[in-house]
Amino acid sequence: MQIARISLESGPRYAIVDHDSDEYVVLAGDPIFQGLDTTGQRVPRKGTRVLSPVIPRSKVVAVGRNYAAHIEEMGSEEPATPLLFFKPNTSVIGPDDFIIQPSWSQEIAYEAELAIVIGRPCKDVPPARVPEVIYGYTIANDVTARDIQREEPQWSRAKGFDTSCPLGPVIDLDFDPTDVSIQSRVNGELRQDSRTSLMIRGVTELVSYISHSFSLLPGDVILTGTPEGVGTLQSGDVVEIEIEGLGVLSNEVRTN
Amino acid sequence: MQIARISLESGPRYAIVDHDSDEYVVLAGDPIFQGLDTTGQRVPRKGTRVLSPVIPRSKVVAVGRNYAAHIEEMGSEEPATPLLFFKPNTSVIGPDDFIIQPSWSQEIAYEAELAIVIGRPCKDVPPARVPEVIYGYTIANDVTARDIQREEPQWSRAKGFDTSCPLGPVIDLDFDPTDVSIQSRVNGELRQDSRTSLMIRGVTELVSYISHSFSLLPGDVILTGTPEGVGTLQSGDVVEIEIEGLGVLSNEVRTN
Repeated sequence: MQIARISLESGPRYAIVDHDSDEYVVLAGDPIFQGLDTTGQRVPRKGTRVLSPVIPRSKVVAVGRNYAAHIEEMGSEEPATPLLFFKPNTSVIGPDDFIIQPSWSQEIAYEAELAIVIGRPCKDVPPARVPEVIYGYTIANDVTARDIQREEPQWSRAKGFDTSCPLGPVIDLDFDPTDVSIQSRVNGELRQDSRTSLMIRGVTELVSYISHSFSLLPGDVILTGTPEGVGTLQSGDVVEIEIEGLGVLSNEVRTN
Repeated sequence: MQIARISLESGPRYAIVDHDSDEYVVLAGDPIFQGLDTTGQRVPRKGTRVLSPVIPRSKVVAVGRNYAAHIEEMGSEEPATPLLFFKPNTSVIGPDDFIIQPSWSQEIAYEAELAIVIGRPCKDVPPARVPEVIYGYTIANDVTARDIQREEPQWSRAKGFDTSCPLGPVIDLDFDPTDVSIQSRVNGELRQDSRTSLMIRGVTELVSYISHSFSLLPGDVILTGTPEGVGTLQSGDVVEIEIEGLGVLSNEVRTN
């Protein structure tokens, strides 16, 4: 089952994606907190604006250097422990929203990532129980001001500016993240082309480790790192991230 | 005027501190969003439990290396631009809550800091308009797992674990942060003893700069850096942070 958050005249609503009829089945509330009760309303997918499928209440935790070939292209080293950093919820945008290059960066880059949505308050989760705390999966673009990342020791500004965390288009509740294709394209040209099986640390290990570092809350999002092929974006570029089974997350770049 | 968040039988409530009668005047809602309407209820301060005076909806932005003598004691260098990092809202605790040393750190340290509470959604705030977006001031302890901070390049774990951000006891709405005493004591012994006038970058410059880095939301909190005299904490230690005019923030340390 896939969940989207959509913009209706009555305001933003959550909905189940009905692929057979190509419609959204509107939900009564936020499914993470209120389950899957529907309002009975159905709206066509075509022409309906899709929003970020989740609003992180507390945090986006991102993992750096989790694909060997990306570590190599960056001239970095594999970290001894998972390299964690935060993106604030003010960085989140949805599908088709503009990525706005800040005035203080001359070099912003895309990073295709698989994103995990947490469904329950949890802490110190053993690996065997990780499936219980995962609500579902979506796609993220860990947009990075690469010049600022080189200049500043902490990545907060480089990876935390407004619009630096596109998420969507849907949350898939039945997704198997073990070995699927992950790609990015800029203006239709393939840039990243890898598989989630190449993560150094997989979903189970990451969620368990992160839950030992911080309490996780429903709606928290975990980004699992990007594969090789990252590169910069110019104003007017359209960047698409595609993960097999999760769809395509597309955003156009503008300068501030 | 000073605002506290207190624990009543009916649940957590905001209140005005009436210093003359030594009572709390209970407010109808969160004053950042709903103003200062009172319920008419008054409760004695003595015996009433005080909570963190603010729940950050989006983020705690902290500033590193903002006092010259602290940069010297750490063997660090003054950063060319303000050094920003995030603490998640899951790290926030209130006065008299326990600071819990995580099992994965052997060395946690106190850092006394002046904290700014943001009152309005804002972005790209020019220095002259910074007073309009500040709701008030409180005290913070930027508790740090110093061993993890040395080992890991990003400070997320070292400064973001649960209980690493004690805040309180009150938000003062009329506070002048320019030049007041800031101190910390461990088990009654003075450890840090400085003045806010010794900040390298003051409140106005920091808030303006941070608002150019990220949109700020009501309830966001900014920590302004710690002066010299930082040191480690052991289980059973009581750490008190005192800022002239804002009271004392006291927390005891426990190991996990």
